[in-house]
Amino acid sequence: MTRVLLTGFEPFGGEPVNPSWQAVSTLVGGAGGGGYEPVAVELPCVFDRSLPALREAIAAHRPDVVVCVGQAGGRAGLSVERVAVNLVDARIPDNAGAQPLDVPVAENGPAAYFATLPVKACAEAARAAGVPASVSHTAGTYVCNQVFYGLMHLLATDLATEMPGVRGGFVHVPYSPEQVAAAGSAVPSLAIGDCAAGLDALVRIAVEVRTDISVPGGSLH
Amino acid sequence: MTRVLLTGFEPFGGEPVNPSWQAVSTLVGGAGGGGYEPVAVELPCVFDRSLPALREAIAAHRPDVVVCVGQAGGRAGLSVERVAVNLVDARIPDNAGAQPLDVPVAENGPAAYFATLPVKACAEAARAAGVPASVSHTAGTYVCNQVFYGLMHLLATDLATEMPGVRGGFVHVPYSPEQVAAAGSAVPSLAIGDCAAGLDALVRIAVEVRTDISVPGGSLH
Amino acid sequence: MTRVLLTGFEPFGGEPVNPSWQAVSTLVGGAGGGGYEPVAVELPCVFDRSLPALREAIAAHRPDVVVCVGQAGGRAGLSVERVAVNLVDARIPDNAGAQPLDVPVAENGPAAYFATLPVKACAEAARAAGVPASVSHTAGTYVCNQVFYGLMHLLATDLATEMPGVRGGFVHVPYSPEQVAAAGSAVPSLAIGDCAAGLDALVRIAVEVRTDISVPGGSLH
Amino acid sequence: MTRVLLTGFEPFGGEPVNPSWQAVSTLVGGAGGGGYEPVAVELPCVFDRSLPALREAIAAHRPDVVVCVGQAGGRAGLSVERVAVNLVDARIPDNAGAQPLDVPVAENGPAAYFATLPVKACAEAARAAGVPASVSHTAGTYVCNQVFYGLMHLLATDLATEMPGVRGGFVHVPYSPEQVAAAGSAVPSLAIGDCAAGLDALVRIAVEVRTDISVPGGSLH
Repeated sequence: MTRVLLTGFEPFGGEPVNPSWQAVSTLVGGAGGGGYEPVAVELPCVFDRSLPALREAIAAHRPDVVVCVGQAGGRAGLSVERVAVNLVDARIPDNAGAQPLDVPVAENGPAAYFATLPVKACAEAARAAGVPASVSHTAGTYVCNQVFYGLMHLLATDLATEMPGVRGGFVHVPYSPEQVAAAGSAVPSLAIGDCAAGLDALVRIAVEVRTDISVPGGSLH
Repeated sequence: MTRVLLTGFEPFGGEPVNPSWQAVSTLVGGAGGGGYEPVAVELPCVFDRSLPALREAIAAHRPDVVVCVGQAGGRAGLSVERVAVNLVDARIPDNAGAQPLDVPVAENGPAAYFATLPVKACAEAARAAGVPASVSHTAGTYVCNQVFYGLMHLLATDLATEMPGVRGGFVHVPYSPEQVAAAGSAVPSLAIGDCAAGLDALVRIAVEVRTDISVPGGSLH
Repeated sequence: MTRVLLTGFEPFGGEPVNPSWQAVSTLVGGAGGGGYEPVAVELPCVFDRSLPALREAIAAHRPDVVVCVGQAGGRAGLSVERVAVNLVDARIPDNAGAQPLDVPVAENGPAAYFATLPVKACAEAARAAGVPASVSHTAGTYVCNQVFYGLMHLLATDLATEMPGVRGGFVHVPYSPEQVAAAGSAVPSLAIGDCAAGLDALVRIAVEVRTDISVPGGSLH
Repeated sequence: MTRVLLTGFEPFGGEPVNPSWQAVSTLVGGAGGGGYEPVAVELPCVFDRSLPALREAIAAHRPDVVVCVGQAGGRAGLSVERVAVNLVDARIPDNAGAQPLDVPVAENGPAAYFATLPVKACAEAARAAGVPASVSHTAGTYVCNQVFYGLMHLLATDLATEMPGVRGGFVHVPYSPEQVAAAGSAVPSLAIGDCAAGLDALVRIAVEVRTDISVPGGSLH
């Protein structure tokens, strides 16, 4: 059975929880219900430690597919990220207090990688499961993008020989309702259960198909 | 035990469902879990029939508290409405094809009524239950506002003698995730279960207390 | 010639300027170009002083039409307000440090007043002049709404005999581009020149016509 | 004096005008006021013709700096784009009726290019001129991104020998107020004069400096 490594993040930016880890961790232990073998790992929201932790998780679990997941506070649905850029530009300090500006993720890496998941099919699968989702063309320039780029770079370079054919991508998820309620703010949210159901649906299709569907999903700007 | 009449609406505007009725109907039958006796009635989204249906439901169930609930597509949390205005100005036709413009709800009624629920305590109770919520100062000018105004006018006039002391208010709820997923749009949503939990929390506090809490909850504009 | 009193506000909330006064003050001195005689007065953003200042300005200038204007940071166009509510609920302290919660503007006043300007014609006139504009159904619960309600209450009560037939309303305006640029934020703005042109267009139509146009302009919620 | 080629687009998507061309064309003829020699060219919003037109304009004018400008309806300020991706995914047909999906801009090009303008200094210069502006990390997947990527690819490949050292970038601009007013919508806008002033300020700094400033300007997601 296809083994899927799912990663979520620890809380950051003053939040007590991180919905990416809350959702991902519920997919392990049978909730997903079949079709793939899920493994879940929590990554630190620390620029210096996130990629070593990801590399270690891949080495330990030897997955066929890797889907990293992170919080995108303010977005209303799952964002299946299509583009990882070789840029770190931290708006706020990470959990270790570091705030790198305008540095590459990988010194000699290409400017960007595209996800090797069928991003449009993934978004459609989540929507078919009743969970708002769309393709996104920017994962930002914080630890999420660093992990996304680092993952794709790892798969394309160091692991290309040792573990060929591993596919990877990144999904951003909204705040949970509890986070928004506690903050008293008016931004969108998505229940952890719905978030997990959407992630499960998109992982299943990512496992099943390698060729994306050809439907409009781009952005005018 | 305090009897609470909860109303939701039938679908409108081309939607196959209406989350107000989906959430309200789950509160009947024990899900609410105590503290009040819930009765749920679905209202037509038709200007000519909504208020007769509301009046009939009140006559049939003789509630102590009435909370009408309606869909506010695009909002991110529960909106506890504070002001009902004596104005109907339909942006789209109702389910019977009528589109009244710039007419009063009640010919000789006052310009507005305030809800007689503790609106800030209600919003806080929903948030304490983990559901995004806030006080709103406009319920629009469509069937929702008509029902809200019609309810308050009824309680203040025709029913003031026959059923004195009945309190009432209105709550707007977001789209469900399924609606947003089906539309492929990027607007906020709230799961029906969370919506119902928030409504339940706010109904409980509305039943318990009559004096609102004094905390900032206003709008700058 | 019809005399029109235009009021704007002094800056508040930490802003160095208030676009309502910047725009209104440019309309005096010929920029308006005819059709009415404009008088402009700046009101304090202080709950205790705003209405006395408004009353004094009306007594001094004896206008036929009064259009009060205020800043609505975050809105994208002119908002021609239709409803003033008898409620003060300050989200932030005013310029004198007062933050009244849940008190009426006028102790025994009605719950609300409607503007006596042709609000839909006003919004259409601004749009015809190339300035984004729409009708709004809430002016908030801060000093802007207090002044709007206070104006309508004054015209309906104390001045009804002494100055019968005076009409009034309120318009909210966006931040200026300079404010948004200085804050480094991503909210909408409107240039002071465009704001003034839109206000001029809507004042002209408010002076000319008393019966509003019958077009859809309501809100679903 | 440094020669700067500025391009704008013809209208698309049913709009009668395109603010990118309206703003860019005002910078030619002295409005800019010095510091650089502006040349302006209007590009077709047609996938098959946009890059040939750009290439021709560069050949004709032999600029030192190229700043392509396009409309980003819904954004509130100037967006100085940092990343061009090798992807065309058209949400709507172009002006010739073509709607390419999921194809690269350049068959064997890299996944992305970074702008070679000092993007943070550019955004800061516009803001210092009173015009809302920020750095953006996605230019979408429509003709704007195609032109941005095509420009950077051209400068990095075919023109690298013939015209070495030419720098380039892309700026997205909001709708004009007239567009939003005509549509009767509630989205942000920016006056053409302000738009041009912001572009002028950012072109000046782009001409003057090659090393960007080191300030936070990234996105969390």
